[in-house]
Amino acid sequence: MTYDPNNIFAKILRGEIPAHKVFEDAHTLAFMDIMPQADGHTLVIPKEGAANLFDLSPGMAAHLIQTTQTVARAVKSAMNAPGVMVMQLNGAEAGQTVFHIHFHIIPRWSGLDIKLHARGMADPTVLKSHAEKIRAALG
Amino acid sequence: MTYDPNNIFAKILRGEIPAHKVFEDAHTLAFMDIMPQADGHTLVIPKEGAANLFDLSPGMAAHLIQTTQTVARAVKSAMNAPGVMVMQLNGAEAGQTVFHIHFHIIPRWSGLDIKLHARGMADPTVLKSHAEKIRAALG
Repeated sequence: MTYDPNNIFAKILRGEIPAHKVFEDAHTLAFMDIMPQADGHTLVIPKEGAANLFDLSPGMAAHLIQTTQTVARAVKSAMNAPGVMVMQLNGAEAGQTVFHIHFHIIPRWSGLDIKLHARGMADPTVLKSHAEKIRAALG
Repeated sequence: MTYDPNNIFAKILRGEIPAHKVFEDAHTLAFMDIMPQADGHTLVIPKEGAANLFDLSPGMAAHLIQTTQTVARAVKSAMNAPGVMVMQLNGAEAGQTVFHIHFHIIPRWSGLDIKLHARGMADPTVLKSHAEKIRAALG
């Protein structure tokens, strides 16, 4: 689909709006989801402008999953989460709301249902604290 | 975590139990989920024995997401699905039930909730038909 360079993640990449960043390299960026489905919910995006998995170059897909591995390991450790869900949604029908491809990293604890719907904004202080823990786990 | 070579996906890889395969290359295999959360639900697994994303080599992670791209594109087309959810679960607390890493490719249609719980076995005839459509879309 057509990529809109004014989507919110493109603005974060350009530094036009702030984010609680936890990791960045030449190809990818990871930051806290401001409407978390669970504490520690982190997003990983490529610096390539692609709306979804179908539009992403295979090389960038490789970078993206490798950063997701690295960051998911840190999220698991920082949040002391026994389980981690990795999710990537393509199309509004699948629940995609920002049309710059992103991987969700969602910590899971036994018996705790994630918030699939009715997502609300998180307290920025909490997000900042989680981002600090994850950055510390990344070393 | 420790990898159990007797898990059901390892058995599929060794040809000890059948599967409705849709794609195979040197590093990866894709086949229909027999307990689909939606019609066309397909799984992609590496031939490397890794329980989860944390144990998978970065090189195999790249192969795995690239096959997931290829197969997801075919699933979308074959099932005429406007949306596609890609999901990868790590740990029982995240809902992982087979401890050989796998990516779920789940077609989504507007307003149709996926079956997150209470999964049942699919009709093998239906799975066979979906596999045929997806193989056809792969060319």
